[in-house]
Amino acid sequence: MISRRIGQQTLAFAHPPVIRGRAAVVGPKEGEGPLASYFDMIKEDKLLGEKSWERAESRLMIEAIETAVKKAYLTADDLDFMLAGDLLNQITASNFTAREISRPLIGLYSACSTFAEGLAIGAALVDAGYARHLVVATSSHHQTAERQYRYPTEFGNQRSLSAQWTVTGAGAVVLSGEGVGPVITYATIGKVVDMGSKDTSNMGEAMAPVAADTIWQHFQDTSRSPQDYDLIVTGDLGRIGNPLTAELLSKAGLELGGRFSDCGIMIYHQTQDVHAGGSGAACSAVVFGGYLLSQLESRQIKRILLVATGSLHSPTSYQQGESIPGIAHAVSVEYLQ
Amino acid sequence: MISRRIGQQTLAFAHPPVIRGRAAVVGPKEGEGPLASYFDMIKEDKLLGEKSWERAESRLMIEAIETAVKKAYLTADDLDFMLAGDLLNQITASNFTAREISRPLIGLYSACSTFAEGLAIGAALVDAGYARHLVVATSSHHQTAERQYRYPTEFGNQRSLSAQWTVTGAGAVVLSGEGVGPVITYATIGKVVDMGSKDTSNMGEAMAPVAADTIWQHFQDTSRSPQDYDLIVTGDLGRIGNPLTAELLSKAGLELGGRFSDCGIMIYHQTQDVHAGGSGAACSAVVFGGYLLSQLESRQIKRILLVATGSLHSPTSYQQGESIPGIAHAVSVEYLQ
Repeated sequence: MISRRIGQQTLAFAHPPVIRGRAAVVGPKEGEGPLASYFDMIKEDKLLGEKSWERAESRLMIEAIETAVKKAYLTADDLDFMLAGDLLNQITASNFTAREISRPLIGLYSACSTFAEGLAIGAALVDAGYARHLVVATSSHHQTAERQYRYPTEFGNQRSLSAQWTVTGAGAVVLSGEGVGPVITYATIGKVVDMGSKDTSNMGEAMAPVAADTIWQHFQDTSRSPQDYDLIVTGDLGRIGNPLTAELLSKAGLELGGRFSDCGIMIYHQTQDVHAGGSGAACSAVVFGGYLLSQLESRQIKRILLVATGSLHSPTSYQQGESIPGIAHAVSVEYLQ
Repeated sequence: MISRRIGQQTLAFAHPPVIRGRAAVVGPKEGEGPLASYFDMIKEDKLLGEKSWERAESRLMIEAIETAVKKAYLTADDLDFMLAGDLLNQITASNFTAREISRPLIGLYSACSTFAEGLAIGAALVDAGYARHLVVATSSHHQTAERQYRYPTEFGNQRSLSAQWTVTGAGAVVLSGEGVGPVITYATIGKVVDMGSKDTSNMGEAMAPVAADTIWQHFQDTSRSPQDYDLIVTGDLGRIGNPLTAELLSKAGLELGGRFSDCGIMIYHQTQDVHAGGSGAACSAVVFGGYLLSQLESRQIKRILLVATGSLHSPTSYQQGESIPGIAHAVSVEYLQ
């Protein structure tokens, strides 16, 4: 039997799945950021005409999937599976989306790293021939996340300077066994790391060690080096966590240099009052599905390592005094031709 | 490229992964039920000596995994991946377990059908060569579930007769590309079905249509018939949902007959005051990992279809007046020799 795994934690795709369609749908604040021109849709109304923030989040994911499928020159019926997840309790944004999209659902939860987990599992299913086409999607919404994890926004509490701003949006990509486009070559599945941090207002600091762990392991497993990538981009470490990760890796002898960035830093202007940057399960999904893939398609860059991190706590675990475990998954995306 | 999918929704495993180790760890009430002698451990203390119900639930999962790995004659280091999920917000029982087990984590959420989803994805990863050995685990705990979904048990509210009792326990199986034991041959991934039910105290009724949908699709995809199975067993439909499913399929021309049963009915005596039966992400996991696999190993039965259903609502979606979407995944397990 052939082995499709290399090293300790990395899936190697023998027939690298093609990213055949992609879409990023965002809210108004994201539409005022530097990447506005790369998003497929910018919604002026955070409620999207729905009666609840939660319904609005599902609507973002539905429209992202429909757009990605259309851009892949397919219909939803062509999708063998839908892999999806979000930050809501019981991932209801994804579940209610799957009720409308009506394709076999593989529900995932890996917090803000869910998009990378979905790309990894989705690529495996396509690579090995379990699926011809499938869609991977994640969403988040500032108002649903604040209500669930912190305070309802109506409460108007003051945010700490280390806090990040949950991205309102949804990203979707269609992976196919055939077609033209960037491909997924490797995926490194992360281990849970917990360094004892208990500050839920400083996710960047809590998640930096786990990002460093997975990036280190990716280079070990693939025998690649940072120089093999044009861009190594974390999901939502923000202005505190991203440089901390670079520092941790530097101390371990791995210099990422100027090619290291973060979706949560890229998505907002510093003047937009988001403090340490963007976050949320949609953060890496919309920056990847909107901006990064466009850079690959135009050959501005040829190879990306997307490293999405997830904080695996819950409000209950936090209230019970538990520290914050984290995880990071890395996905290598490139043009082979 | 070879195709590993048959029909619309079914994965077909060319090198059927072996269930090389299995374990079921349960609480005191499950230990008083008819399957007591099949469980690896029965905990007399619902708290397992921990300081919170949530910590106790993680402890159940940790011990289930450690036992399954030992029975597979492996160590945790041999596991390439851990696939896990539970019912807690942000699947913290699984996340805190993965912090201790320290293997690359693929987090899943499919409510009470998570164990079947895990078997499906896990079998795909082993079958195609992404993993040599991995573990699939799920847990639930009566006290954590009541607090999160309904009322803290200290409140002492009266349960309706159609309500089910969340199983306190955790099940784990080790899937391997080599070894001797029952194998997984097919997995049918379900679509989300919502028939408009809004009664969260009657999950069996809400989930019956989705179980029927997946069972029907499994037979369509595989060209098998109910007679090809010794046992077709749902996860936690209970005394209301299980016969309803049989009735729906009968009307569609598919007679399941006496081979149709339910883990939620099997796990408790009718005198144990559980009303409509057992439920929870651990229900199918411990009955499968404890009782059903022992029946396969002793060749009492030779082929099982495990059909786990999941209710995809959340307390928030319920409070917002949404109906209850459901999903069911089916996994075919058999002795090939």
